[in-house]
Amino acid sequence: MLRVLVNGADGRMGSQVVKAVYEDKELEIVGGVSISNIGRDIGELAGVGVLNIPVRADLGAVLEDIKPDVVVDFTAPKAIFDNAKTCISHGVDIVVGTTGLTEEQRVELGNMAVEHRVSIFIAPNFSIGAVLMMKLSAEVAPYLPDVEIIELHHNNKLDAPSGTAIMTADKIDAARKIAGAQQAQDKTHESLEGARGAKVDDIPIHSVRLPGYVAHQQVLFGGYGELLTIRHDSIDRKSFMPGVILAVKKVSSRPGLTFGLENYL
Amino acid sequence: MLRVLVNGADGRMGSQVVKAVYEDKELEIVGGVSISNIGRDIGELAGVGVLNIPVRADLGAVLEDIKPDVVVDFTAPKAIFDNAKTCISHGVDIVVGTTGLTEEQRVELGNMAVEHRVSIFIAPNFSIGAVLMMKLSAEVAPYLPDVEIIELHHNNKLDAPSGTAIMTADKIDAARKIAGAQQAQDKTHESLEGARGAKVDDIPIHSVRLPGYVAHQQVLFGGYGELLTIRHDSIDRKSFMPGVILAVKKVSSRPGLTFGLENYL
Amino acid sequence: MLRVLVNGADGRMGSQVVKAVYEDKELEIVGGVSISNIGRDIGELAGVGVLNIPVRADLGAVLEDIKPDVVVDFTAPKAIFDNAKTCISHGVDIVVGTTGLTEEQRVELGNMAVEHRVSIFIAPNFSIGAVLMMKLSAEVAPYLPDVEIIELHHNNKLDAPSGTAIMTADKIDAARKIAGAQQAQDKTHESLEGARGAKVDDIPIHSVRLPGYVAHQQVLFGGYGELLTIRHDSIDRKSFMPGVILAVKKVSSRPGLTFGLENYL
Amino acid sequence: MLRVLVNGADGRMGSQVVKAVYEDKELEIVGGVSISNIGRDIGELAGVGVLNIPVRADLGAVLEDIKPDVVVDFTAPKAIFDNAKTCISHGVDIVVGTTGLTEEQRVELGNMAVEHRVSIFIAPNFSIGAVLMMKLSAEVAPYLPDVEIIELHHNNKLDAPSGTAIMTADKIDAARKIAGAQQAQDKTHESLEGARGAKVDDIPIHSVRLPGYVAHQQVLFGGYGELLTIRHDSIDRKSFMPGVILAVKKVSSRPGLTFGLENYL
Repeated sequence: MLRVLVNGADGRMGSQVVKAVYEDKELEIVGGVSISNIGRDIGELAGVGVLNIPVRADLGAVLEDIKPDVVVDFTAPKAIFDNAKTCISHGVDIVVGTTGLTEEQRVELGNMAVEHRVSIFIAPNFSIGAVLMMKLSAEVAPYLPDVEIIELHHNNKLDAPSGTAIMTADKIDAARKIAGAQQAQDKTHESLEGARGAKVDDIPIHSVRLPGYVAHQQVLFGGYGELLTIRHDSIDRKSFMPGVILAVKKVSSRPGLTFGLENYL
Repeated sequence: MLRVLVNGADGRMGSQVVKAVYEDKELEIVGGVSISNIGRDIGELAGVGVLNIPVRADLGAVLEDIKPDVVVDFTAPKAIFDNAKTCISHGVDIVVGTTGLTEEQRVELGNMAVEHRVSIFIAPNFSIGAVLMMKLSAEVAPYLPDVEIIELHHNNKLDAPSGTAIMTADKIDAARKIAGAQQAQDKTHESLEGARGAKVDDIPIHSVRLPGYVAHQQVLFGGYGELLTIRHDSIDRKSFMPGVILAVKKVSSRPGLTFGLENYL
Repeated sequence: MLRVLVNGADGRMGSQVVKAVYEDKELEIVGGVSISNIGRDIGELAGVGVLNIPVRADLGAVLEDIKPDVVVDFTAPKAIFDNAKTCISHGVDIVVGTTGLTEEQRVELGNMAVEHRVSIFIAPNFSIGAVLMMKLSAEVAPYLPDVEIIELHHNNKLDAPSGTAIMTADKIDAARKIAGAQQAQDKTHESLEGARGAKVDDIPIHSVRLPGYVAHQQVLFGGYGELLTIRHDSIDRKSFMPGVILAVKKVSSRPGLTFGLENYL
Repeated sequence: MLRVLVNGADGRMGSQVVKAVYEDKELEIVGGVSISNIGRDIGELAGVGVLNIPVRADLGAVLEDIKPDVVVDFTAPKAIFDNAKTCISHGVDIVVGTTGLTEEQRVELGNMAVEHRVSIFIAPNFSIGAVLMMKLSAEVAPYLPDVEIIELHHNNKLDAPSGTAIMTADKIDAARKIAGAQQAQDKTHESLEGARGAKVDDIPIHSVRLPGYVAHQQVLFGGYGELLTIRHDSIDRKSFMPGVILAVKKVSSRPGLTFGLENYL
């Protein structure tokens, strides 16, 4: 059984990780760290009953005491770089759920991890479905290079297009370029501006913003008399948990830094 | 049995009308007129076998001979105005499938029809499904005023957005204005231009153009924790025939000019 | 402003009604009744802050004190019949959200309401989207009588098909029968039993049960070279609130008993 | 340039292959064989204009004369076995589009092909989109083992479920078994028989048969708060051509017998 410590154990995501680790038969929850709720039981905070594991404040000290196999970190952008260094220097594998590391910081952590023979995993998206959608889309692109993306979110999402849509377009375009696939020429004239969407790598992205949606994306591939469509619907934040658990189980298999859940699929 | 004459009987649409009238139990095909294929059998041209009805050239003369109940006209934009006047002056109801009449010409034909106690029907779209989609959308709008439209066509359609999408948006907006329904404010920022589509009456329209599609449209209504979507798929030009047949059967019920298949639904 | 009292004000649905009434500009929340949480503030229970309206226990006494215009009742199946009679005898309109009344009880309440010149409203489904889906489906049926239903729910829903799917099929079949519309003959042979779904009024219903879904339904109409599809997605229980508010505002417009939200659309 | 001969060149599929080969820049159409239309020009039959290539009757003689690189065979089930042997014994690669070979015959042809250092390719489905749908579904299955299939066809398709749906279920189940993935228990009770579809490898398949559909399939994967859906729409028989062309180009790369287009993707 892998022994797991959660950093940020009392947070919105962290407490869900505590719960998910607790409920997994191959994992054991052994510790929780945070800057708040010190002394409170992490099981109670996660709603799974008393685990007799109090929240503690000092990550380094806890690592020395408990010696977990893996740390899952869902803390804050400004804390994550130091947290990761602490884990690596203690020889503990780490799964980073917090975003905000710069390219430079990632390189530094990667080098440090190699040096200490430790594994560090970072992901921009822990939804297995979303990561699969991107992976499958890149596989289809060489055969059906004509593609458009529709992403649909609630009307409180302020930006458009979504980061996932842009990332999907990038992966599709890279794949069809490597394969040398030729898309059809777009001869359409917009009689009203914006009708044909935003273009990322020449791939139109259409952003719908309506109450009632959560987070959804369709990738539409058009072919000769046929269509192939890949659709992902995310209804709930809990959809990230299976990806976190997968990363916890796989992290030790790839020493050094690994970026993106697709490396484990 | 209604006795039907087809003007433009040897054309792409006209020969389908001959076939559809021939196959309908409540209708009888009694004549065909055209400027080409004079003397050829309209049944043979339509692929339903010999009907012993030769194509004739002079609409007025044929009307006097045959005295049909209804004329269906799928000829050419420049011919349709005179054709319609000929039918009306002979006291014969007419279903106009040809587009291209001006507002002024429609008014003149309407007045003339009232005077002669004749019915004339004109439709921009004979697909029952498309007309229902627009009608239903207008019904939903007062209750779910937050709406976007996605229309998807083959990549040889040169304009975007489609006429049907614009017409749908107009009908939705009229309906929600009459009801005094308030849509949510759109606070989204486009980080890439075009992501939020083209706006018609403040309704975003997204136009997809890909090989493999024929003619499709989705109307997406977003509500409080729920979504209502109306989708129309047109796979084949033959989808217009049921609408033509419906118009033939209903035209006499509304003297004067009627515009739009929705009046018969 | 309509003055509204909520019976069951501290319950899961009732407290959402308190919130929804409180947030509506045309309504005023004036009282709350329950058998639990007596004395606690209904605003605090609903998470909208102190309203200085304590939960009280005796519906009849509260009605005499407060004289609300409308009572919304989300209590329990066995309480609802007596609650409704109490409201009617006090001359107060009532919106019933609790299911469980028998046909007989509904008739009795209807007669009593007519006698007291009071309005009572009962609905099996308060989702405006779901009710619209059924209404629109019945409108389409005369023109496109060939139809199938796919309903998709989470895998914890134990019964199949859903009540909404059955109700939709009933309404579609009634509408196409009245119109005398003929559906195509189903000549398909099931090489594996169940492939063609369950049949309600000769309409196939297909029930999908998978984790990730909440409550969704598609009504598929097939025509000559075209398809019309109506889809409803319910993501959240809060989707019932707009329907409740609509009923509160409309209830007085139809004296006696009204059954089904479609009567207000 | 690969030199291609079409057997069954005057048939519905064969003449489309002539056209597709003729229009491909990397392929040259060099001959046509059939038992009918002898002496007529294969280009004229395919609607691409005169190619000065007459239909000939004797496959063996033509192979010796013309020495093509690849033969594409769209003839008849009872002819295909002998045709394939003729090609192999002449040392010519063959792409078989005709179905109807038994397992035994395939083994015999495979052995013969190895002996003669020739490649033979056989596919149950030449639609690249359909083959990708099955391939992607098998990739998703280990991560999201809870799955259902909806296939939708025109109402003239007499069997249900479709062969493609059954094949998809088989591939999904094999993939999730290899991965040891556990699906959720299905606890649903059918109050009406058939609601939960037909079961293939414990995967529910729902078959819709309605006018307006051509050939469509959705594979629905349900996860923890998320859904992944793969959809294939085939609108036209011409959708098989890109798969045939792909096979023609790739056939020589795999000596012996190859079964299924997925081997080239």
